[in-house]
Amino acid sequence: MKFITFQKQDGSIRAGWLKNNEYAVDMHEATNGVLPKTMLAFLENHAFFMEFLSTGKKLKNTDKGVYPLSEVILKAPLPNPKSFRDFYAFEEHVKTARGNRGLDMIPEWYDIPVFYFSNHLSIKGPEEEISRPKNCEWLDYELEIACVIGKEGKDIKASEAEDYIFGYCILNDWSARDIQRKEMKVGLGPAKGKDFATTIGPYILTKDELEDYRVENGYDLPMTAKVNGTLLSEGNMQDIYYSFYEMIERASDGATLCPGELIGSGTVGSGCILELGTDVHRWLEPGDEVELEIGCLGTLKNKIAIE
Amino acid sequence: MKFITFQKQDGSIRAGWLKNNEYAVDMHEATNGVLPKTMLAFLENHAFFMEFLSTGKKLKNTDKGVYPLSEVILKAPLPNPKSFRDFYAFEEHVKTARGNRGLDMIPEWYDIPVFYFSNHLSIKGPEEEISRPKNCEWLDYELEIACVIGKEGKDIKASEAEDYIFGYCILNDWSARDIQRKEMKVGLGPAKGKDFATTIGPYILTKDELEDYRVENGYDLPMTAKVNGTLLSEGNMQDIYYSFYEMIERASDGATLCPGELIGSGTVGSGCILELGTDVHRWLEPGDEVELEIGCLGTLKNKIAIE
Repeated sequence: MKFITFQKQDGSIRAGWLKNNEYAVDMHEATNGVLPKTMLAFLENHAFFMEFLSTGKKLKNTDKGVYPLSEVILKAPLPNPKSFRDFYAFEEHVKTARGNRGLDMIPEWYDIPVFYFSNHLSIKGPEEEISRPKNCEWLDYELEIACVIGKEGKDIKASEAEDYIFGYCILNDWSARDIQRKEMKVGLGPAKGKDFATTIGPYILTKDELEDYRVENGYDLPMTAKVNGTLLSEGNMQDIYYSFYEMIERASDGATLCPGELIGSGTVGSGCILELGTDVHRWLEPGDEVELEIGCLGTLKNKIAIE
Repeated sequence: MKFITFQKQDGSIRAGWLKNNEYAVDMHEATNGVLPKTMLAFLENHAFFMEFLSTGKKLKNTDKGVYPLSEVILKAPLPNPKSFRDFYAFEEHVKTARGNRGLDMIPEWYDIPVFYFSNHLSIKGPEEEISRPKNCEWLDYELEIACVIGKEGKDIKASEAEDYIFGYCILNDWSARDIQRKEMKVGLGPAKGKDFATTIGPYILTKDELEDYRVENGYDLPMTAKVNGTLLSEGNMQDIYYSFYEMIERASDGATLCPGELIGSGTVGSGCILELGTDVHRWLEPGDEVELEIGCLGTLKNKIAIE
């Protein structure tokens, strides 16, 4: 299933799913209030709700709560994740981004999957405009895949981590490279360089729908980024060095993971201008449109707001 | 006022305040349901609720919802902050911690107040036991002061930031120095070295009660840390280099701050074993008791759990 959050013409915002890629179904309305109004509430009890959906055959033919996509606005499928951890799991990205600054690879990168917490209160959705931070001249996108946690757990082993994943979506970790570069010199990692916007969407695909694409470290899913229609980044999710299972093992080591937490993979190789170099493409500017596409996870498009 | 969250003998957890430092008042029960049950809900509408409290004179004499402190368990005063940013605002801490590793001061530190996001889902309260992470042999405390945001805002100027602060509390940013040291080599800042526990409490003091202590950069508040009764750290909040107003300006630059977000100051000079050196005190071990005290913000005591 493809879970979404959308705004109806009356202004209300509801969680639901895509039907035939043509309709948005309001889960609360379609089930006469059995399912909740928000994706976070759905995730917090999703085992029960998914069971209800799988047995609720009548739902498939109901017209209740069904809206043509042209009449709704898609929002971030999970507009208010409980937290957002972003990992650094693609080797090529780390190597190239460091190489461009004349730096060698870090030996510790091969020992442990490393992440930072970013601003889970700045999540935006498809088609939302991104404001370039003031004092930022080096605005960049980052092409990532993310997983959404569906089950509470602590000290989860990689071998059991599949159970804790609800589904996957595309993630764009917008980055102000000049701000990031300066603050990272102080040693606490990125914060203001990343906290102004992260986009996810257009939907969360439940993990069962990815089974056909399974490979050793994840899934065989082509990942691309275009800026104003020009293909800039091309990678594949299967090139990931640390699997999401290893990331979950790391994240939950001594800390409780909850339904609704969001985990980003880090940028796929070639998946940002920082890696490509500004001789390939200049930094993003107001009016630019960035389009990320990942296999069966759809397309996530955002425009940089005119200042 | 001293706002708290506490567990009653029937197991329910309620927000409220201290009365004469002898009683816990359940704000929901004492106001016949006008005030909410949680501190976060109170903060989200606190201007209205504080107005209600200031006019509700009868409240002062009611016995409803009043419990002797000996009959309740104090929890973190804000058990579920919306986020947790930790700054690095005391110069002595940064200088000494770096100096101990043979590193010079970072010039950029003087240009911008820098922070990282930490795990707001791992907040604990007074008297809660802290589990030393597995594979950690260098467990440390960090003596900090924190402010709690009470009002939504974006691009807040330092000169207006006072308006956005609800109050202050003590914060202990527990740190696994060996885990932190390794992960920080990868460049994304601290995460697993800090994400297992942060304690706050015992109460949030509203900012009006600090007026008598005001000095240029903050407040004249002595800060101390004791381990098993031995005084190890001694500082003063007034030695802070970046004020909370400057931290709020930085945090809210291009990002919305919400009621219930928590901002830590970073460690006061001498406020952790990393700075003191293990010739002054060994790393913390199971059974150790750490007691932080800050002027009129009370005492925050936690024990390291026996393994």
